[in-house]
Amino acid sequence: MDMDRLKEIGIVERLVHPAQKAQLTSREFQAESSFVNVENVSIGSQKLVIIAGPCSVEHREQLLEVARTAKQLGASMLRGGAFKPRTSPYEFQGLGEVGLRLLSEARDETGLPVVTEVLEAGKIDLLAQYADMLQIGARNMQNFPLLKSVGRSKMPVLLKRGMMATIDEWMQAAEYILLEGNPNVVLCERGIRTFEKATRNTLDLAAVPVLRKQTHLPILVDPSHATGSRDLVAPMTKAAVSAGADGVMIEVHPSPQNALSDSHQQLDLDEFAKLMQELEPVARAVGRRLR
Amino acid sequence: MDMDRLKEIGIVERLVHPAQKAQLTSREFQAESSFVNVENVSIGSQKLVIIAGPCSVEHREQLLEVARTAKQLGASMLRGGAFKPRTSPYEFQGLGEVGLRLLSEARDETGLPVVTEVLEAGKIDLLAQYADMLQIGARNMQNFPLLKSVGRSKMPVLLKRGMMATIDEWMQAAEYILLEGNPNVVLCERGIRTFEKATRNTLDLAAVPVLRKQTHLPILVDPSHATGSRDLVAPMTKAAVSAGADGVMIEVHPSPQNALSDSHQQLDLDEFAKLMQELEPVARAVGRRLR
Amino acid sequence: MDMDRLKEIGIVERLVHPAQKAQLTSREFQAESSFVNVENVSIGSQKLVIIAGPCSVEHREQLLEVARTAKQLGASMLRGGAFKPRTSPYEFQGLGEVGLRLLSEARDETGLPVVTEVLEAGKIDLLAQYADMLQIGARNMQNFPLLKSVGRSKMPVLLKRGMMATIDEWMQAAEYILLEGNPNVVLCERGIRTFEKATRNTLDLAAVPVLRKQTHLPILVDPSHATGSRDLVAPMTKAAVSAGADGVMIEVHPSPQNALSDSHQQLDLDEFAKLMQELEPVARAVGRRLR
Amino acid sequence: MDMDRLKEIGIVERLVHPAQKAQLTSREFQAESSFVNVENVSIGSQKLVIIAGPCSVEHREQLLEVARTAKQLGASMLRGGAFKPRTSPYEFQGLGEVGLRLLSEARDETGLPVVTEVLEAGKIDLLAQYADMLQIGARNMQNFPLLKSVGRSKMPVLLKRGMMATIDEWMQAAEYILLEGNPNVVLCERGIRTFEKATRNTLDLAAVPVLRKQTHLPILVDPSHATGSRDLVAPMTKAAVSAGADGVMIEVHPSPQNALSDSHQQLDLDEFAKLMQELEPVARAVGRRLR
Repeated sequence: MDMDRLKEIGIVERLVHPAQKAQLTSREFQAESSFVNVENVSIGSQKLVIIAGPCSVEHREQLLEVARTAKQLGASMLRGGAFKPRTSPYEFQGLGEVGLRLLSEARDETGLPVVTEVLEAGKIDLLAQYADMLQIGARNMQNFPLLKSVGRSKMPVLLKRGMMATIDEWMQAAEYILLEGNPNVVLCERGIRTFEKATRNTLDLAAVPVLRKQTHLPILVDPSHATGSRDLVAPMTKAAVSAGADGVMIEVHPSPQNALSDSHQQLDLDEFAKLMQELEPVARAVGRRLR
Repeated sequence: MDMDRLKEIGIVERLVHPAQKAQLTSREFQAESSFVNVENVSIGSQKLVIIAGPCSVEHREQLLEVARTAKQLGASMLRGGAFKPRTSPYEFQGLGEVGLRLLSEARDETGLPVVTEVLEAGKIDLLAQYADMLQIGARNMQNFPLLKSVGRSKMPVLLKRGMMATIDEWMQAAEYILLEGNPNVVLCERGIRTFEKATRNTLDLAAVPVLRKQTHLPILVDPSHATGSRDLVAPMTKAAVSAGADGVMIEVHPSPQNALSDSHQQLDLDEFAKLMQELEPVARAVGRRLR
Repeated sequence: MDMDRLKEIGIVERLVHPAQKAQLTSREFQAESSFVNVENVSIGSQKLVIIAGPCSVEHREQLLEVARTAKQLGASMLRGGAFKPRTSPYEFQGLGEVGLRLLSEARDETGLPVVTEVLEAGKIDLLAQYADMLQIGARNMQNFPLLKSVGRSKMPVLLKRGMMATIDEWMQAAEYILLEGNPNVVLCERGIRTFEKATRNTLDLAAVPVLRKQTHLPILVDPSHATGSRDLVAPMTKAAVSAGADGVMIEVHPSPQNALSDSHQQLDLDEFAKLMQELEPVARAVGRRLR
Repeated sequence: MDMDRLKEIGIVERLVHPAQKAQLTSREFQAESSFVNVENVSIGSQKLVIIAGPCSVEHREQLLEVARTAKQLGASMLRGGAFKPRTSPYEFQGLGEVGLRLLSEARDETGLPVVTEVLEAGKIDLLAQYADMLQIGARNMQNFPLLKSVGRSKMPVLLKRGMMATIDEWMQAAEYILLEGNPNVVLCERGIRTFEKATRNTLDLAAVPVLRKQTHLPILVDPSHATGSRDLVAPMTKAAVSAGADGVMIEVHPSPQNALSDSHQQLDLDEFAKLMQELEPVARAVGRRLR
């Protein structure tokens, strides 16, 4: 390794060995747990954060109906995809800015802060006009330029675990964001890919206590994408809270069977109401609260 | 396929197409949930079944100390390995019949029924003298002659999921046992093998509600083997109960750091006491009880 | 750990630390590569060993037709299942001893030594009457009592890799056999379980050079079970030989579409003939020969 | 799903059902195999394409030495990373434009076309000034905006398989590029993530014949990243060619032990020369040639 040459061209300062500095995400760097504030919502506190909303924003009535019900039932934030990462280019790609405007409208009416996915750095400014938190999806967990860009934006970031990412790689992806001066990162376990086919992915709930020990960042769980099946969302939500998660993100749709994406895994409004009711005593049993 | 020839040699009656009969393990065959009784313990009832004990039986004091504490804290059954399946032939292989006698003694003193692992059909009669329930370990989940043998024994069977087994394959392994006339099968999720290295295996808690829908058999969870780390046992036990498990199997040792096997994942007696205390409100929150 | 007590009960001699002795399977123990002789066939030599035959023995004509063709085309050994490990108890379980007699008859006619799977220790004596090599299937790779039993039998053993077994665990499974005084062990890579669904398993050909470096035992590859698709058998056979395998085991059936098991992955006789023809120059290119 | 509303806002034309049109990547769409031309190199022809070069461009001498040797030994293209996707932000991130200039200089001297990785759409124009082919790395296989951007660039694209991507998802990622009017896509298998730890990833060579049947696009293999170990590169290169690959991409470095990245898996110049020599007869054995 030709250090002199590297010094000449002025890049040697980037060659910092990991062991030379405490990782910003680690408990060694910061022992006490972090809170991430998204408008009036504090993620990481005793009160569980429930993020609810449809997979994709489809139209005004759909979104407003979900938002109002979610608010009334005790959810803290609204989710909804406007730019959707889809396996096939022939699948519904989201409403784009039209969807963002609807999210913003729903927030204005209900007061629920909005989280939505960002797929490319060039759209961050646009998203910042309408949303309160940026989601980095599983497929982009190691999209390093995007991580740096959301880091520079200073907006709260929901960083989902990659389907193929170890917990350690996930922590290092978060490190990219913190290193740009943005400490507002929330981790979200959403299932990993395994040989099992009965579920869409395998929800790795042990990741919650593993992370809790290693990092001060708040930790959420997404049982909808992990399981891919609405029947499994309620038990896995309760399990996630019992395992110590700071909250959950749940896909809710007024009419899941007609959804433009993820129709098998979204709860309808009644199912979501039932889940919130069942979740309350579980939250209390582990020293948390829903309201 | 030469059916006539097969008929001639008298084996055609084995060629039953799966679709021709309801699987004995399925809800289609039996809609209501099964109870499996092991002496005075009913697995599958409202009362959670906690099976506690050391990975390996090592000596009298070790086992009796665990058994007495487990009994006092509300455990229903005692576990302990006498014949151990070990990756390397140079590792401790268990005390064999000496260990069985100690298990039997601990049962006589505490009244806790005993479950222990069976590695080969030739040992079933011996095990039946000392134990109340036979465990089929993960590595033997598709040891079909052994499944048939425990089926013929009619003893209660704890069937652990293979590290590489789909839920569907696991159900079919249970089918082998039921088909021999033994309905006393309890399933036990213990983690599957994935790329993640932070835990020994990945505990697939979604398997609990998936199985609940498909089968009438009781379902337990083993958070000790799944995680391989004592810190993770308590959160994953609570998560398992919240996901709907009928109970858990937990490795407990008076002095884990000196254990002959699995020293990283066994709880000590204080940790187990603390877990039982924390578990009680969680059990109640999902309509279960510990006592 | 109470060593004194363990000594008293006479089991301390089993507690040998792995580091205290060289593993019998390792290159440290034996630097030069081993040959395993099965009758007149030497596995591990410059001449590649091609084992061909049907998944299951079904009837005399089926087996004899395959055996004669295999012999004529340059195969060295005959395979065929008589006792079949099947995921479901409702699937064809093999002809049992009837099948063994047919295998023996085919060997007598063609001179090809026979390998067939053993599922339980109690059948080893029976199998020894008819077969020349015992196969331990993927599901039994960690059936330790069975490994010890085939070890004591001293018969040549074909040890398939478990679907979820690391290479290291596989080596240690072989160690169980060698430790009983049986050095005649051949390893056979047959695919591991992954998330990919386009193939039945994922053939891990890198295991061949990894093993070559670590162990002196011969190494075969089974492209039929690994891929589960007849179209893929020829390219993966050529790849296996190029990666350095000492031979391959290929499923061949006179009429695959009518096979009682694995109908999708068995080659018909013409496909096998074509493969043998294409394989010859590849073998030569890597310093091997087929005849 | 409110189609009328979607029509109103003008996005309904994006909602094309996959079944409505043949996938552009499929053999149904184009039966004959495609050639992708990168300057004077035709990928997909009888002549195998060998892409060689260091993991990261480090300095002029390093790169030129590799390029000259590669050219002399029969390689067709030069690889080298200037913008590196690194798990940790504290690892060497590449020389950036300095590296691109060196790549361009090496091309000018040797005539070898250059392929280098693109991490973000905003850098495509810059890369286009210096490189002849853009690589989409494993972590960006489902970075859909980036796929669309390289599609619009019309430059030849080397699309690596994601570590946890099914073959089907990989094909659909390629579809994103073709759909933008860029047919110049080459697929590159580079190993998938499994439980096995003896290799960095598990090289899925069966993907080569699976893809060959489904798609007309050329297929390469990267044994360096797949295995992570220089000892395994030669056998797996020969295996890849035997499995039907159109070429390979191999990491070569004048002094691997001093490399700034991937030091364990890069071949030195002598190892590369030896591999090229050994590969020649294997190529011929499967109807291919190296020169």
